[in-house]
Amino acid sequence: MPTTAAAALSIEALFSTDARAFVPSAIRALSPLINDPTVISFAAGVPNPETFPAGELSKACARVLADLPKRALQYDATAGYLPLRERVAARSVAKGIATSAAETLLTTGSQQGLDLVSRVLLDPGDVVLVEVPTYVGALVTLAGRRAQPVGVLRTAEGIDVDHLVATVARLRSEGRRVKALYTIPNFQNPAGTAMKKGAKDALAEACGRLRIAVLEDDPYGELLFDEGGGWDTTPLASRLPSATVYMGSFSKTLSAGFRVGWLHGPNELMAKAELAKQASDLCSSTFTHAVLDSYLGACDYEAHLAGLRGFYRERKEILLAALREHFPEGSRFTDPAGGLFSWGELPEGIDTKALLARCVAETRVAYVPGEPFVVEGDARRFLRVTFAKESPEKLVEGARRLGAFFRAERA
Amino acid sequence: MPTTAAAALSIEALFSTDARAFVPSAIRALSPLINDPTVISFAAGVPNPETFPAGELSKACARVLADLPKRALQYDATAGYLPLRERVAARSVAKGIATSAAETLLTTGSQQGLDLVSRVLLDPGDVVLVEVPTYVGALVTLAGRRAQPVGVLRTAEGIDVDHLVATVARLRSEGRRVKALYTIPNFQNPAGTAMKKGAKDALAEACGRLRIAVLEDDPYGELLFDEGGGWDTTPLASRLPSATVYMGSFSKTLSAGFRVGWLHGPNELMAKAELAKQASDLCSSTFTHAVLDSYLGACDYEAHLAGLRGFYRERKEILLAALREHFPEGSRFTDPAGGLFSWGELPEGIDTKALLARCVAETRVAYVPGEPFVVEGDARRFLRVTFAKESPEKLVEGARRLGAFFRAERA
Repeated sequence: MPTTAAAALSIEALFSTDARAFVPSAIRALSPLINDPTVISFAAGVPNPETFPAGELSKACARVLADLPKRALQYDATAGYLPLRERVAARSVAKGIATSAAETLLTTGSQQGLDLVSRVLLDPGDVVLVEVPTYVGALVTLAGRRAQPVGVLRTAEGIDVDHLVATVARLRSEGRRVKALYTIPNFQNPAGTAMKKGAKDALAEACGRLRIAVLEDDPYGELLFDEGGGWDTTPLASRLPSATVYMGSFSKTLSAGFRVGWLHGPNELMAKAELAKQASDLCSSTFTHAVLDSYLGACDYEAHLAGLRGFYRERKEILLAALREHFPEGSRFTDPAGGLFSWGELPEGIDTKALLARCVAETRVAYVPGEPFVVEGDARRFLRVTFAKESPEKLVEGARRLGAFFRAERA
Repeated sequence: MPTTAAAALSIEALFSTDARAFVPSAIRALSPLINDPTVISFAAGVPNPETFPAGELSKACARVLADLPKRALQYDATAGYLPLRERVAARSVAKGIATSAAETLLTTGSQQGLDLVSRVLLDPGDVVLVEVPTYVGALVTLAGRRAQPVGVLRTAEGIDVDHLVATVARLRSEGRRVKALYTIPNFQNPAGTAMKKGAKDALAEACGRLRIAVLEDDPYGELLFDEGGGWDTTPLASRLPSATVYMGSFSKTLSAGFRVGWLHGPNELMAKAELAKQASDLCSSTFTHAVLDSYLGACDYEAHLAGLRGFYRERKEILLAALREHFPEGSRFTDPAGGLFSWGELPEGIDTKALLARCVAETRVAYVPGEPFVVEGDARRFLRVTFAKESPEKLVEGARRLGAFFRAERA
């Protein structure tokens, strides 16, 4: 075997500049701590799989493989299975997005949507504005393009538009190319915050005026469980259609394990995104598309969503009440009207990252420290908690133990 | 609605340099001609979906959603569902690849494997050697990285190693960075050719000596249906483990519509490829992985493969016999020992691309002209035909009509 010459080659000598810049998710480094299955997890970044309609999906699988096996088991168009694109587009139109099946690209979760759009829009060094805090997975995708994330303030009401305008002006005066804003408007990961109508209007107006694209990531928009707050879940894409890319997903509502999301955007961009997908993976799984299409045709998805909202509302109320009862004075948690997450701020002097290992060891409760979510500023007092994973009893018990731990730290 | 400023923005003004270089598959432009469902298709680039085990897959879906719904419907590790990685790795080890589940990344078809590896290895302008002819989809992925494909001759016996060595020397003398060879060693798309042991040994030795990576795309290796030719389907990865990336797929054997492939490679490269996948789409569909794992655990995959080989061998023999009978003198077709395709060379003066539209109109038979597969040289007399799609009767009838058409052109 001619291995002598081969042994001398290190494959690393051939790596691309992009590969040298790849960064793992900052949450991954914490994985041994936060993914220990024996602890109560406020750390999980995933929906509760008990909410997925396994029985109905099983029936849909059987229907698809009985009725259209040759189509469902074959390659499909790069854009995805047309009947599902039609259903997705119709739902988006009902939300105010001017789109159609032809302008809908099915993706491997909304994460692939962001990757495809990043390939279409971003050169190395381009600036993408991101919320502080923001979704860690988006930072990974932006790093994969060697784009530069720069923070804009996300408040309880939305994005601080004055800060955004000033930031763009400053960056441009420094000669930097500001291409886009990445935002999760509805029940954001990690903060759980949403936006009101005026805040969305002002944000879309500012981005249009600044001529930056809006990358609207909306995996949680269907999970509005508290109608009373006046939160507006209508898409930014309905306000700024010429420059908004909308990313949706079934991952939080029907199955995270199917990995089916979608992308809408201006025609010129969609044409390029489809080419980017062709280069990335030819097409997604026809079978998962056909199963979701069959489910949506046979089942009452709206009723399923209503049940899901009730499930998460109850968990949220239980967790928030317990956090308020047990956490030290001066702690604050966002009170989300939807989604899966709350974002906590602890009193001065507490360092959530430094304390994580000891906390998990002593309390057997895990959270995610704030730092991975924050591209600038001090996140030491912050943490993300989810009410999605644990039972009501464990939510209360976890809050009690965690609160006692942080109270002791304060003492 | 603040659409005035927005209307003035063209999203194209924000496009990346990569996006400007995206090219659609050259076969796509021919799609209205070659994908007309009313014609006999020798053009399809896909397996025959009748060969997929729909009934067994349906049972596997039911088992998975009854036995492990919470796991199968949830996100998974970026590398994919561990039990399937273990099965894939065990099969690869049996083929001589020194790998393990930990060194196996499940991908969206082998196409995503190529994209991930391209992200890890290729900077704009880097040269990737490709076979003449080669798989069109690989050229699309390489264009997505702005890499430069340069041709090396693929003969009936393998790659012309002298030509490869001379090509690398010439390119390097011109100051160009030659990073890799992309090859489909077994029953290549489009040529149907394979390699013998000596040719594979010599190729691996040359690539090791030249210090280029080998991107070994092997979707057809399981489809060796003619054992008599002395063809060696053992992987190049078993010969040059330090520099070979092996891409496999279930798309031709169990389901193209599941989109499940895999990647093996040197550890340092696999770590980067996993980060590239995290940036691309977080993870593939846990559900499709779990279903394939359940199928492989419950069914006799080897017997299924044996049936598949018999199916394609029969079709190949029928088509080749009919082509030999009906095509004009001076025509030559490769006689593949596996896979789905044969590559034809017609007599002087025939231009397969120029004739395609009239041929389809007159004969109602479609083929793919050679040009899209060939990065350099004259492909006018070449065409790709597949025996995968049509029934034996239609294969004979199609060959008869197509042969008559080209004989008339010769007259």
